[in-house]
Amino acid sequence: MDRRPPRVKGGKGFRPRRPALDFDDVVYGIHAIEEALTAQEGLRAIHVASDRKKDAVLRGLLGRAKELGIPVRFEDRGFFAQLPFKAHQGVVAIAPPFEYRSLHDVLGVKREGSPRLFVVLDHLTDPHNVGAIVRTAEAAGADALVLPERRSAGINATVRKAAAGAAAHLPIARVSNVADTLRTMKKAGMWIAGADADPSATEMTKTDLRGDLALAIGEEGGGLSQLVKRECDYLVRIPMHGNVASLNASVAAAILLYEVVRQREM
Amino acid sequence: MDRRPPRVKGGKGFRPRRPALDFDDVVYGIHAIEEALTAQEGLRAIHVASDRKKDAVLRGLLGRAKELGIPVRFEDRGFFAQLPFKAHQGVVAIAPPFEYRSLHDVLGVKREGSPRLFVVLDHLTDPHNVGAIVRTAEAAGADALVLPERRSAGINATVRKAAAGAAAHLPIARVSNVADTLRTMKKAGMWIAGADADPSATEMTKTDLRGDLALAIGEEGGGLSQLVKRECDYLVRIPMHGNVASLNASVAAAILLYEVVRQREM
Repeated sequence: MDRRPPRVKGGKGFRPRRPALDFDDVVYGIHAIEEALTAQEGLRAIHVASDRKKDAVLRGLLGRAKELGIPVRFEDRGFFAQLPFKAHQGVVAIAPPFEYRSLHDVLGVKREGSPRLFVVLDHLTDPHNVGAIVRTAEAAGADALVLPERRSAGINATVRKAAAGAAAHLPIARVSNVADTLRTMKKAGMWIAGADADPSATEMTKTDLRGDLALAIGEEGGGLSQLVKRECDYLVRIPMHGNVASLNASVAAAILLYEVVRQREM
Repeated sequence: MDRRPPRVKGGKGFRPRRPALDFDDVVYGIHAIEEALTAQEGLRAIHVASDRKKDAVLRGLLGRAKELGIPVRFEDRGFFAQLPFKAHQGVVAIAPPFEYRSLHDVLGVKREGSPRLFVVLDHLTDPHNVGAIVRTAEAAGADALVLPERRSAGINATVRKAAAGAAAHLPIARVSNVADTLRTMKKAGMWIAGADADPSATEMTKTDLRGDLALAIGEEGGGLSQLVKRECDYLVRIPMHGNVASLNASVAAAILLYEVVRQREM
């Protein structure tokens, strides 16, 4: 027989359930949390293992959190046992969820005097690749990045870490359908260039990338989906002079982005 | 009282000690080991957890190992407990140590009709970055890569994995001193270009990179050491148009390598 009191909301025996942690927004480890504090990422809370209360490094970190008005909670081992990672060093922080822009907002972004440059990711699942592309796109002066809602890494803590702060500067939109988005972009006057390793694609330096441009990048290995390829005005390839057949997705994106930069600065 | 027999070599009670595993050369996880088998990397042995003997996926893998004549050993939990990683899925393989070339060999490498291109890594410690650079250098048609013996990731299993097979095709030398190596290269008629984020460096597209060239890449953040910078004939920078101050080391190397390719193909 179950002797626990029934969990009637507000009734006798009711204990408000702590909302489940969204692990996507968990920053873990002392160094990563220190970086997030320095970047003033608006951490919502810091959870610390009770048995590490007296650790000198942690005390310094908690002092900074206090100055910034971030709530600190002490937790037992059960709290840390539920986490899907082990390298937390007894401290995790909750970052605010990433604020995506709408596609409409992103299409409205325009800088004075230079053609537009968007990066569209076709279902990239590796957060390190997505983060590295966000970082390079921001450095190359791209106006925005677009990625799909499903079957894609979202902008979580790992991506933000790999992006080294660039996710706070580059407008990023999440869309339900990549091919539809490319059609919308074409109607808005953009050219669509798709990265493609196939020899039938045009060599990047022989393609004019100086107009308003969306650069579509596919997953390493698979590349762009057929539906996305069909929406591209041209397919561009990176010359390959060795034995390996493909490049890492974030490396390919970087080489293509800087070919755009080069052509525009000529 | 210790009742174990004394360990006299060759004497009564002597049990030959199993040589310690070099974790650098351990490939772990079913998928990674399958890849190594497919690439015929000459695995020396496969160690499997006894309690996973009957696992169907593992049996397929062990069947392939048998065909290739790779010894398989069944191990107890103690064996796996000593490993510094947890995601081994009850199976690890021992890859042969990487075969480095000598600097002399590498300097002798020369392909018909095109100028030489070497990549020199100045103490990069992240194996993922080193692996990604090996992969991109091979794809860009570089002749060889050079890295220091100390304070640097060597070509271990993680690097080889990140290099996606390229480490088997690109000659790689390990040297005791990077600055000395650059001097030797200059005597051999090479130009030395160092990657540098400082605004005083020359923009990469405005630098002639068409001669026999060694491209020196430093660690993200710190960049090239002063001693290495001093040996460079010129310092080149990647134009930065955003808020982030630097690029990932493997991304920076890729952009510079493909600028060399572009200039040479013009």
